[in-house]
Amino acid sequence: MDMYMVDMAVPNEGWSDESKLWFNKLNELTKSGEWKKMKSFVHGKYSKALFTRSVSVGHPGKFFEYAFFCNKEESMLRGVCQFGSRTEGPPSHAHGGAVASIIDAASGVLCHYVSRVPRVTANMNINYRRPTPLCETILTEAHVDKTEGRKSFISCKLTSPDGKTIYAEGTVLFIQIDVSNIPQLNQE
Amino acid sequence: MDMYMVDMAVPNEGWSDESKLWFNKLNELTKSGEWKKMKSFVHGKYSKALFTRSVSVGHPGKFFEYAFFCNKEESMLRGVCQFGSRTEGPPSHAHGGAVASIIDAASGVLCHYVSRVPRVTANMNINYRRPTPLCETILTEAHVDKTEGRKSFISCKLTSPDGKTIYAEGTVLFIQIDVSNIPQLNQE
Repeated sequence: MDMYMVDMAVPNEGWSDESKLWFNKLNELTKSGEWKKMKSFVHGKYSKALFTRSVSVGHPGKFFEYAFFCNKEESMLRGVCQFGSRTEGPPSHAHGGAVASIIDAASGVLCHYVSRVPRVTANMNINYRRPTPLCETILTEAHVDKTEGRKSFISCKLTSPDGKTIYAEGTVLFIQIDVSNIPQLNQE
Repeated sequence: MDMYMVDMAVPNEGWSDESKLWFNKLNELTKSGEWKKMKSFVHGKYSKALFTRSVSVGHPGKFFEYAFFCNKEESMLRGVCQFGSRTEGPPSHAHGGAVASIIDAASGVLCHYVSRVPRVTANMNINYRRPTPLCETILTEAHVDKTEGRKSFISCKLTSPDGKTIYAEGTVLFIQIDVSNIPQLNQE
């Protein structure tokens, strides 16, 4: 099988034991049927090389590792992620752009899962509360706060596993796009 | 020489001819002495693997290519960048997190060049005006809008070479950090 078609939202040798533990905890939620594990590929239905996955190909644990779970009824996402050693900004902590990438990815996955129409990021406003440590288990949570016509307002935060430390929290506005403006979408 | 100690802010085979042209145009500015080309390494003084550079090692033109030039007198940055084929979000366009990464990188370089003390990203607010095309020449411009004690307020935008299309524009707040909180900084 083409490696680009393998679901990357599963633990690999780059995941810490704690991250694997959290993956299993979150995966347990899917048994009730209310939560769904979101599969994630390098090549999506639309994208040829989705940035947050493409960057990690061949480098397990060095860049982004993450798995997201969604609950449609509650318009909510929960996930586990790790920022690898090559996502550094401040010493031993994740680059602001790397943190933004995961917040955009989580918010986008939730937005698309709930709305089921192509939407793109129109605004992203992130408060970096504490430096996000490298190679540690980080939990992600996102909610759809509001949907108004073509706009979806999502809030998203990254926390320590015990929930006591908020590393970053932000709001992301997605806007439904006119697919006729993007030939690749239009052709499908 | 260790490849990680080579200045990466110079054209390589992944740069388009237009990007090389803009690099040369901006480099011309340095002749007057008012502008300085900022060198950029994978391993910085503080970071072991700066995300926006580390991601591109071994993949010229596939992720981030960029070079920044600063004018201290005017507290201003100008630069040229390219989002490679593996930074995709929307089809044929850069991921919101990739755009945020370059905005954070440009703003951070300018902030550090002007203030000369360690500052970290505290808030980043980006408006995505138009999808940012992959593999095209994008210009970056950033300004220090205000400095208040430990805070620096930077604005940054990405435009087409003719300046007519603004792809994204944002504000980034940096806050000076207490180095004693970060052992790696304290040891140096």
